[in-house]
Amino acid sequence: MRLGVLTGGGDCPGLNPVIRSVVKRGVLELGYEFVGIENGYMGLVEPDLAYPLTRDAVRGILPKGGTILGTSNRANPFQYAVREGGRWVERDLSDRALARARELGLDGLIAIGGDGTLSIAHRLLEKGLKVVGCPKTIDNDLSGTDQTFGFDTARATVTEAIDRLHSTAESHDRVMVVEIMGRNAGFLTLDSGIAGGADVILIPEIPYRLESILEKIRKRQQHRKRFSIVAVAEGACPVGGHLAVLEAADAVPGRGVVRLGGAGKVLADALADRIDMEIRVTVLGHLQRGGSPTAADRLLATRYGCKVLDLVRDGLWGHMTALRGCDIVAVPLAESRKERRVDPRGELVRFAKGMGISFGD
Amino acid sequence: MRLGVLTGGGDCPGLNPVIRSVVKRGVLELGYEFVGIENGYMGLVEPDLAYPLTRDAVRGILPKGGTILGTSNRANPFQYAVREGGRWVERDLSDRALARARELGLDGLIAIGGDGTLSIAHRLLEKGLKVVGCPKTIDNDLSGTDQTFGFDTARATVTEAIDRLHSTAESHDRVMVVEIMGRNAGFLTLDSGIAGGADVILIPEIPYRLESILEKIRKRQQHRKRFSIVAVAEGACPVGGHLAVLEAADAVPGRGVVRLGGAGKVLADALADRIDMEIRVTVLGHLQRGGSPTAADRLLATRYGCKVLDLVRDGLWGHMTALRGCDIVAVPLAESRKERRVDPRGELVRFAKGMGISFGD
Amino acid sequence: MRLGVLTGGGDCPGLNPVIRSVVKRGVLELGYEFVGIENGYMGLVEPDLAYPLTRDAVRGILPKGGTILGTSNRANPFQYAVREGGRWVERDLSDRALARARELGLDGLIAIGGDGTLSIAHRLLEKGLKVVGCPKTIDNDLSGTDQTFGFDTARATVTEAIDRLHSTAESHDRVMVVEIMGRNAGFLTLDSGIAGGADVILIPEIPYRLESILEKIRKRQQHRKRFSIVAVAEGACPVGGHLAVLEAADAVPGRGVVRLGGAGKVLADALADRIDMEIRVTVLGHLQRGGSPTAADRLLATRYGCKVLDLVRDGLWGHMTALRGCDIVAVPLAESRKERRVDPRGELVRFAKGMGISFGD
Amino acid sequence: MRLGVLTGGGDCPGLNPVIRSVVKRGVLELGYEFVGIENGYMGLVEPDLAYPLTRDAVRGILPKGGTILGTSNRANPFQYAVREGGRWVERDLSDRALARARELGLDGLIAIGGDGTLSIAHRLLEKGLKVVGCPKTIDNDLSGTDQTFGFDTARATVTEAIDRLHSTAESHDRVMVVEIMGRNAGFLTLDSGIAGGADVILIPEIPYRLESILEKIRKRQQHRKRFSIVAVAEGACPVGGHLAVLEAADAVPGRGVVRLGGAGKVLADALADRIDMEIRVTVLGHLQRGGSPTAADRLLATRYGCKVLDLVRDGLWGHMTALRGCDIVAVPLAESRKERRVDPRGELVRFAKGMGISFGD
Repeated sequence: MRLGVLTGGGDCPGLNPVIRSVVKRGVLELGYEFVGIENGYMGLVEPDLAYPLTRDAVRGILPKGGTILGTSNRANPFQYAVREGGRWVERDLSDRALARARELGLDGLIAIGGDGTLSIAHRLLEKGLKVVGCPKTIDNDLSGTDQTFGFDTARATVTEAIDRLHSTAESHDRVMVVEIMGRNAGFLTLDSGIAGGADVILIPEIPYRLESILEKIRKRQQHRKRFSIVAVAEGACPVGGHLAVLEAADAVPGRGVVRLGGAGKVLADALADRIDMEIRVTVLGHLQRGGSPTAADRLLATRYGCKVLDLVRDGLWGHMTALRGCDIVAVPLAESRKERRVDPRGELVRFAKGMGISFGD
Repeated sequence: MRLGVLTGGGDCPGLNPVIRSVVKRGVLELGYEFVGIENGYMGLVEPDLAYPLTRDAVRGILPKGGTILGTSNRANPFQYAVREGGRWVERDLSDRALARARELGLDGLIAIGGDGTLSIAHRLLEKGLKVVGCPKTIDNDLSGTDQTFGFDTARATVTEAIDRLHSTAESHDRVMVVEIMGRNAGFLTLDSGIAGGADVILIPEIPYRLESILEKIRKRQQHRKRFSIVAVAEGACPVGGHLAVLEAADAVPGRGVVRLGGAGKVLADALADRIDMEIRVTVLGHLQRGGSPTAADRLLATRYGCKVLDLVRDGLWGHMTALRGCDIVAVPLAESRKERRVDPRGELVRFAKGMGISFGD
Repeated sequence: MRLGVLTGGGDCPGLNPVIRSVVKRGVLELGYEFVGIENGYMGLVEPDLAYPLTRDAVRGILPKGGTILGTSNRANPFQYAVREGGRWVERDLSDRALARARELGLDGLIAIGGDGTLSIAHRLLEKGLKVVGCPKTIDNDLSGTDQTFGFDTARATVTEAIDRLHSTAESHDRVMVVEIMGRNAGFLTLDSGIAGGADVILIPEIPYRLESILEKIRKRQQHRKRFSIVAVAEGACPVGGHLAVLEAADAVPGRGVVRLGGAGKVLADALADRIDMEIRVTVLGHLQRGGSPTAADRLLATRYGCKVLDLVRDGLWGHMTALRGCDIVAVPLAESRKERRVDPRGELVRFAKGMGISFGD
Repeated sequence: MRLGVLTGGGDCPGLNPVIRSVVKRGVLELGYEFVGIENGYMGLVEPDLAYPLTRDAVRGILPKGGTILGTSNRANPFQYAVREGGRWVERDLSDRALARARELGLDGLIAIGGDGTLSIAHRLLEKGLKVVGCPKTIDNDLSGTDQTFGFDTARATVTEAIDRLHSTAESHDRVMVVEIMGRNAGFLTLDSGIAGGADVILIPEIPYRLESILEKIRKRQQHRKRFSIVAVAEGACPVGGHLAVLEAADAVPGRGVVRLGGAGKVLADALADRIDMEIRVTVLGHLQRGGSPTAADRLLATRYGCKVLDLVRDGLWGHMTALRGCDIVAVPLAESRKERRVDPRGELVRFAKGMGISFGD
């Protein structure tokens, strides 16, 4: 059995442990061979981006963030950006991808990635390529699985950042706004906000009213707590607001786009007009995608990597690994498209409110 | 409603977040009052160890290890060590504990602790004291709940220690033995060993043969991997071995006993006789119980603390909080006595073996 | 001897260890008494901001960032912002500060702070208040002393952030821009950039040319290194550029002003027009002022705190502590006004260039 | 110019940054070539342990502990352990080392290591091999230089460990003994003890009296501080005591020797007989030599690495780099043999005593 391995989408701590466990167990226990496909699906379209993925190649990568295979956010074989006549156009190069897989002698492909990567995997399957998947999203917003690797590391990074801001906020009259990843789902902001002791938590699922936030800050001042920490998801909006600007910025294809200070900046500007305190904004940005995976993420990723080989062995093509309770199971790839959201009436939000945290609603 | 709160047993990161969430939600949402009982059950037996536990008292404790209430390993009201005639004897002072609870005007008691603490809680309940419990064990060996707070932090600490040993081990011909907490259950060693990339993992549930470990080390040498990392639980023993010495040392009541280098030292000595490499032993000891709780543990502890108030409100005396899948539920206190062990034939051990990790069996 | 202690200016890891060592040594060895003055000089102007600073008050603060005394960026007794007729005006309330010091029975004042705090201390000395100082600046730009506490912690924080960005940058074709504190001095950016392995380092002392940076990035692409990390100080400017906007934003007195993405954003926008790679900006902001002080900073701060008592004991009013080589010495307060800058022709910049790091010149 | 590079002695965070900066600056700015010699001097005696040390070979090693070249504690060409007739004997193979250097075409050798490594370098110089050195000792006990790389990282590791013990110690009646590296010099224990807030610090330079330590612990109990933290250097001894046992254990040549719990265990046993508190011992062991180098160590190591090339370029064979105040200078290799010790009457010890820390004297 000879399998291709690729990682796609935004990167995420835990990709290397998945790759490592796939190769170690695959070679040692199952006698499989592996081919590393570089830069996501780009490596199936372009030449010279595939190499033998041996045990030596995965040595020492367990504690490392990122992915030794590289990744690509936009390389979709069905809409592949190519330069024609001085500009970028999209072409369907999926046949080339299948041909390349045959050329490399692949009996199957292990695709590790998010919604986008796994959707493409599904389409390639329909065209005849045997694929299994490993879901990945730092946002933890995948309904098919209880938790995705990378999420715990991102949560730890953000919580540590809020801890740091606490120590400096406490010394001043100050509102600290920290902008956290999450355009559609607030899991990362909710968890980190609670774990870091934020006073206000703003998530996409709960539109906020500025007045409600101001009330919370003023109430704290009255109790001589001079600072407030506001954890705000990138995608949090005021009641009636929307995300037009963000989406526009991201829509530019194949071009570098600088995006800085979405929801955090918008909020801070609005607050600055109404309160007589200093406001400071921190945009954690890609810090949240980097760093050594936590022990919990290394374990989850290792279990995913080992389990995906069971799927291969059992011929469960078109499936992906998922965590259900304490177990790693196989679910259809299509599950990767069902997103989940923070339940505004769920227990965690209720508990947080009970403890006095404001959600701005 | 006026509730006592105490923490008992060996300490464990997450105790402070439990206390904090109990008090914050209890005061703000439910209008309860709290009395902090210091040093575990000692605070119910001795005078002057109780004080009002207000919101001010819990400010800033979320990121702190340990417990602001103090704890005590051995203060059991039913077998309370008292000095009589120059020596220590045990007396049943449970009536005094109940009287003290009445004196403090307690409507109920929240006992946060391990098996011992919760067993005592159960016996006090039988004598008429209303109690609810929050389970705590760094060993994660409680069958009533899927995970206990403190475990993730300990796992992170041990994994980081193994990471550190890796970097130095790789530069030398060397066997690094790291002794990890866990007298009866190997969960901490198993998880940290996998997450840290250990070559050999020895746990109480799988008796080891020295020859098998030597074989693994020699095989690595043959592949020019000059070092090996051995993660060994305190309670790991060779086939046919036992833990008599350890237990004897711990049996001395009310006296300082120095214990150092149990299973790790025993193993290292045995290895030193048979291989021509340097061997180094690290005993992590109480490092594993200290440090700021991880984000995951702060969240779990916060949820436990909020939930235990639901038990109080709903009159579920004699119950404790537990994690089942993704939910916090109430289970009878008696569940705290059912221990669980690593399944030697379970998926995680099988995956680890598939990746080439030796368990010495 | 009864001494006031205050901390002023932007906060900085190490303030608590200074306060702790002053109080511990002062009380235990020298028999002094201390009064904590809250929120910098505000505590000498406003009532109710002074309290006995006992050994109990400083317990457990050694590992904590921030300052238990609070601080204030703008409370200058000589130009004190007061509200008159609905708007802010500045008044000289220095006499009130002196009167308050007498009222509190102070024999002297220990002022811990930056250039601003120590300049005010000097003016109060001229009006008759006995003061000694402890210099503090996270920027390390004080010519009177070889290193200031807080700098090592900030350097560690920034280096760790660059480490994190590395792991994610390496997986993508990407330019990572990280904006680092330092409006006038580039020490923090220079040190962290080298320690974090940045490819480009931009500091206020070396105006940059965009073309030079682009050249470096392109050269890396040619060598198949697909990412570049750019460490840029807040105050870095292109050749011929200036900082007008930044200064304007900071000039608004007594008002919350949101400032985000100075030099980093400017640079990223300029790069985005000219290269075909994704660019990501991270603004570390106040993360750099928070967190537990490093061991090195705790030591330096502790030595400063112990030494400043020697100055008091020896009657060296008008002096401050300073590090010279390996020794803590006393220098006149006026030294706090002499700033230093990175030497563009110094050894460290030369070494960095020798290793291939671009400074954009 | 073609230079060999080797690392010798116990490993130490910062070795990789030295190697990296040597190669990066050497290749890019000076046009030198490098040969990596593996496992210290073993690589000059045995075959097949040398390889081209290119820029690619040093990519990504800046944040890594250990040394990519490997090291060896005992490989001395002048007393090389060889197996003859079934047992280990020592032979002078220095001529073979010189021949190997010629064979590899080396114009000179850069030896990075401690006292032992640099002494051997000096003897090889006398036999005609051109060498320069980079001093390395985690103990910081080298009089020729103000600070050695690796020391700051070890100090950070130990301080963090003491922080962790604090949080658990505070919850119990307990004496926590932490054993820290340093057989002859107490710098690491002194610095970490102060930075971690230890109550008792025991170093080789100040013999301790048990009664004095007990007095300190009891005094703390009287002030209701129930725990005490004792930082003890491996080489600390009671008044009149000595280190015979330790030295014997280390004297066994070419054999794995398990050493565990020297001074820490001895002390704990002695205390256990006399106080009625639990005592816990942690032996940090090789954790202190591992881990990613701190920013400060990466910088110092990078400066050493760049500077040692100036020595080569300027023909300063027989010299090594050293830190004097803020400058990196060249000093004769012989300086590596002058050790320094903590001054028991120096300012830092005096300050610590002033703050109430006991040294057991």
